[in-house]
Amino acid sequence: MNIKPLDVKKVSVTDEFWSRKRELVRTEVIPYQWEILNDRIPEAQASYCMHNFKAAAALNKRKKKQGSKFKEPKFTYRGFAVFPDKREDAKDDEFYGFVFQDSDFYKWIEAVAYSLANHPDPELEETADRAIDIVADAQLENGYLDTYYIINGTDKIFTDLRDHHELYCLGHLVEAAVAYERATHKDKLLTVARSYADYVYSVFGEGEGKINGYPGHEIAEMALFKLYDRTGTKRYLELAEYFINERGKEPNYFESEHPDMKGKPDYYHQAHKPVREQDEAVGHAVRAVYLYSGMADMALRTGDEALKQACEKLWDSIVNTKLYITGGIGATHLGEAFSLPYDLPNDTAYSETCAAIGLVFFARRMLQLDPQTRYADIMELALYNTVLAGMALDGKSFFYVNPLEVIPENCHKDERKTHVKPVRQKWFGCACCPPNIARLISSLDQYIYTEDDTTLFVHLYAGSETHKTVNGKKIKISMTSGFPNNGKISIKVKGATATDFTLALRMPGWAEGNFKIQGYERLKTEFKNGYFYCSCFNDDTVDIDLEFDMIPKLVVADEKVAEDAGKVAVVRGPIVYCAEEADNGKALREIHIKTPANLTEEITGEFGYDVIKLSADACRIKSDGAGISSTSLYKTYTGRTIEDIKVKLIPYYLWANRGEGEMSVYLGIKD
Amino acid sequence: MNIKPLDVKKVSVTDEFWSRKRELVRTEVIPYQWEILNDRIPEAQASYCMHNFKAAAALNKRKKKQGSKFKEPKFTYRGFAVFPDKREDAKDDEFYGFVFQDSDFYKWIEAVAYSLANHPDPELEETADRAIDIVADAQLENGYLDTYYIINGTDKIFTDLRDHHELYCLGHLVEAAVAYERATHKDKLLTVARSYADYVYSVFGEGEGKINGYPGHEIAEMALFKLYDRTGTKRYLELAEYFINERGKEPNYFESEHPDMKGKPDYYHQAHKPVREQDEAVGHAVRAVYLYSGMADMALRTGDEALKQACEKLWDSIVNTKLYITGGIGATHLGEAFSLPYDLPNDTAYSETCAAIGLVFFARRMLQLDPQTRYADIMELALYNTVLAGMALDGKSFFYVNPLEVIPENCHKDERKTHVKPVRQKWFGCACCPPNIARLISSLDQYIYTEDDTTLFVHLYAGSETHKTVNGKKIKISMTSGFPNNGKISIKVKGATATDFTLALRMPGWAEGNFKIQGYERLKTEFKNGYFYCSCFNDDTVDIDLEFDMIPKLVVADEKVAEDAGKVAVVRGPIVYCAEEADNGKALREIHIKTPANLTEEITGEFGYDVIKLSADACRIKSDGAGISSTSLYKTYTGRTIEDIKVKLIPYYLWANRGEGEMSVYLGIKD
Repeated sequence: MNIKPLDVKKVSVTDEFWSRKRELVRTEVIPYQWEILNDRIPEAQASYCMHNFKAAAALNKRKKKQGSKFKEPKFTYRGFAVFPDKREDAKDDEFYGFVFQDSDFYKWIEAVAYSLANHPDPELEETADRAIDIVADAQLENGYLDTYYIINGTDKIFTDLRDHHELYCLGHLVEAAVAYERATHKDKLLTVARSYADYVYSVFGEGEGKINGYPGHEIAEMALFKLYDRTGTKRYLELAEYFINERGKEPNYFESEHPDMKGKPDYYHQAHKPVREQDEAVGHAVRAVYLYSGMADMALRTGDEALKQACEKLWDSIVNTKLYITGGIGATHLGEAFSLPYDLPNDTAYSETCAAIGLVFFARRMLQLDPQTRYADIMELALYNTVLAGMALDGKSFFYVNPLEVIPENCHKDERKTHVKPVRQKWFGCACCPPNIARLISSLDQYIYTEDDTTLFVHLYAGSETHKTVNGKKIKISMTSGFPNNGKISIKVKGATATDFTLALRMPGWAEGNFKIQGYERLKTEFKNGYFYCSCFNDDTVDIDLEFDMIPKLVVADEKVAEDAGKVAVVRGPIVYCAEEADNGKALREIHIKTPANLTEEITGEFGYDVIKLSADACRIKSDGAGISSTSLYKTYTGRTIEDIKVKLIPYYLWANRGEGEMSVYLGIKD
Repeated sequence: MNIKPLDVKKVSVTDEFWSRKRELVRTEVIPYQWEILNDRIPEAQASYCMHNFKAAAALNKRKKKQGSKFKEPKFTYRGFAVFPDKREDAKDDEFYGFVFQDSDFYKWIEAVAYSLANHPDPELEETADRAIDIVADAQLENGYLDTYYIINGTDKIFTDLRDHHELYCLGHLVEAAVAYERATHKDKLLTVARSYADYVYSVFGEGEGKINGYPGHEIAEMALFKLYDRTGTKRYLELAEYFINERGKEPNYFESEHPDMKGKPDYYHQAHKPVREQDEAVGHAVRAVYLYSGMADMALRTGDEALKQACEKLWDSIVNTKLYITGGIGATHLGEAFSLPYDLPNDTAYSETCAAIGLVFFARRMLQLDPQTRYADIMELALYNTVLAGMALDGKSFFYVNPLEVIPENCHKDERKTHVKPVRQKWFGCACCPPNIARLISSLDQYIYTEDDTTLFVHLYAGSETHKTVNGKKIKISMTSGFPNNGKISIKVKGATATDFTLALRMPGWAEGNFKIQGYERLKTEFKNGYFYCSCFNDDTVDIDLEFDMIPKLVVADEKVAEDAGKVAVVRGPIVYCAEEADNGKALREIHIKTPANLTEEITGEFGYDVIKLSADACRIKSDGAGISSTSLYKTYTGRTIEDIKVKLIPYYLWANRGEGEMSVYLGIKD
């Protein structure tokens, strides 16, 4: 058996740190988003998402009633995003929003599914069921389901795979449907998803009259593997494989749709060459990691060695040349994309929240292919830093872009930084990140553990309970964790006597081999690829205590990263720290950390729960100039004024929760 | 009498340094540009500039022949720039190029005029005269002259003042015509220019049926003041004043043309408020300094105190918050514009050559209003650094954008730096900079000196001879200069006995009061605003020797310039230095200058003439990391490796003359 994540509902997350975040998603994000999807928040951009499903459903009803007299709408392109001037101008039977607006509902219902699995809520489930009824009514009889074309005219469906998002919507629908069925055992949405997938299967592929294209925005690939896993229906596997195998082949399918792009390598959509030949992460970062996740899924199910090697190369390309220290990816706002190797600007960073989420997806799949702590390290890094930074402490505002250095005035006035916001935003017109955070945090159990027949892998240390049946015996595993404040973990294994059960515990790379383990003495143990494998459980109850050193330390970027030359960042365990104006005043660029930095810890309650704040010996350095000059900008250098200070640092994921101000992850060094 | 530049032909530039540049313009730039204007360089983008004049002339001829039977073309907008797919596809009777393509000829003929004044060349003059014949034939009977509309249809002339360039072309035509008449005493082009200006005067202004707009790209303002000075015709003065007074008034004229911009302040065209209320340099940098030059011209001629004060505020805004150390302006490629105060990125700088040229124009006019060395310092800085950097040593390639830091790979691959070229380009489709350099360098005499009735001001130390008549006596002034290699100047004044003659010698700000003067002992002298005023010349020949200290020094930017924090630049006299890969290897960001830097000078011949190269005590600093990590990008900081080196520096204006490589003006400091 392959290594897989655990089934929904099999894990109960009891962790204090994560429960707080999950509770925010349940009580704030999910209800707020439902209001958004129904255009009931006057101060936010109306979504028109449910409006569109209702309009499509009404159209279907009319069609059925009128029969052959029904006049199909004829498609006319009206734009990638269409919004009425005023909310009251919206017409009941028109489509509004982005071409991919349907996906907002799918992301919401997926988050709802995980939340219901963790925390039953009949009222929410009733709301969800009624919404699913509307979605089902919007579906065409042949299974096609994309309200943009159903409302505007189905004569042009699948004619712009590159820029329109019909297959992206399919992907999110499938992800949501599988999750909802697992959580509630209700299969109405799954039937809708299968029906759409069946229709796509029937019209895509080789041969006369078939479409031999693939998604412009990947996600259907990994979703269809999930659908295959759930249903056992081979054609979903075949369709996912087809999309992956076709991508980037010559003649290029997207060029056939967009002849003006002839001969220009399509890096943006990762369609510049066949996927097995790709070795550098390029293009739109979210699209890229969604594709790579699908490729890893395929390698996992087919044993395709070339595909696995491509995944490994792409992984290395990201983590060794294109990764922010915060686990963020996508260095340029131009195309929300990967930039050159080692080009990692801090102030103009894109580092989209969704891209970090996609990196978590990719990492978990690499862990399934090959359980090595280096994959889990990056998964944890992205999760605890960029993903968490995406949401405010109160769950009410969000970052789409996650810079590593901010001077608010520049964000407001410099056109080159308009993508960088110094404080989180209430909601976005293109609302991909908030629901994506919601669905990831609600499904955290899928990332804490994976398993095969006999082994349970622990990748993330988050307090939780789960069970596993080996040799017919149900084994209970309970974990408590001090993460991220301290590295103390207790794991209790009950009922594993005389089974082939193995527990594989990740030794985080950041601990650099500094950890203590107790309670394993009567077990058979082995270190492999950064995991501590424990087997031969001969006692009914085994308590394993772990303690990983979380000593704060200075970290330096590779010398090829020009932006970080002469600078250091501070990390502690999985948490990356930053300096904020709220603690240190303005002009953070003047602050240089001394070596040794004498990093000290202090627990603060100012964020509503216990957070470890750091302080370091530092100085403010100002260059001095003298002489009268014709410009006050430039003076003769006369030396530097160095003032000793203590610099205070907080976890990066907590920045911008105390009003608008400067922030910097990197600081200068003074030795 | 106001302070004015000297008449063309009154100064003979004998300076070795400048003669070399002027000779390049005469022998390389002017002939090459003539070929470009006539589409005879196969490997360069065809200009179609003379093609358009010929097409317009042919159309006029046809019109005269056909009389009332002639069918006027009806204007249809075909784009801001129209080029045929292939050169051979160009039709004889169509317009090609940018809407402002005519101005390329005007800039060329202006450079030709100055060149002929310095260096008679009957063959070139003949070419120029025949070209002028074509231009004159292209003019409409009513005086209108813009081939874009003459060819495409005159029914829409002056309907898009903001984006089309009819008044910009008028400005360049006038500048050229005045110069050509002064140099050759031939007035055909001047008649053409007057006729166009008269037509514009007749259709612009207050009242029914008149256009109450102003140029979208300024230059006509300063040109019309020149035309007024030359002809004494008051309406040219009035027209220039009208343009200046109307700009930015409510209701906004450009908004009337472009209703979609209603309510959005038009910083780009400096039309966001009336000019007398403007106190921050904003928008397109070339447009801005051309406007400010016109405003200073107006203040000079009208004594308008509010306008003079606005000029002073705008000057201060530039030099104290928006000026590169190289004299470049315009920090952002978005709109080729000024950015926020203190936002002066080195690697994504725009610093257009033409903007530095415009700053020279503005500075000279401020010197006329108020002779203070602070204006001359900036004029000299822009000229010796950014303007000169714009042209290769061989006069065959040019920079449009002048970055202060270059890593060539990034320019090639990073879309955010596509405007930055690591080596000079042969020619540009939008060819404003090369001819602008040509006309400035050829008219250098207009910037070396200014004068009023009795005083000759020396602003730039460039070897030259001139004369001045005071109290009926002709006084000869000859100057030799070691600039920029050394600060030794000799000035011989002959024939000033018993006159009211005053010689005002600039004491450059960069000398910081360190200079020697000899030979003034029998004169009456006074220091004022950085000028050394000498009068009461009682000997027939007076030799004044000056020596300004050109000690290389480290310069630091204001602490508010985030990009330069912790860095220094090296300057020597008026010359800003930079480090190049050719001398120092790659990764210039690792190089830190030590303090004291022990800057030493060395004369090198590697650029074809004696150039002073500097070297400084420095070190290469690399941050060291250790530990195994899941990403090779980030490691635990273990200290720094510091390797002592000598860093070699060359004048910034000479960079990129030894192939493609890294360059940086700023280097780190190590103390």
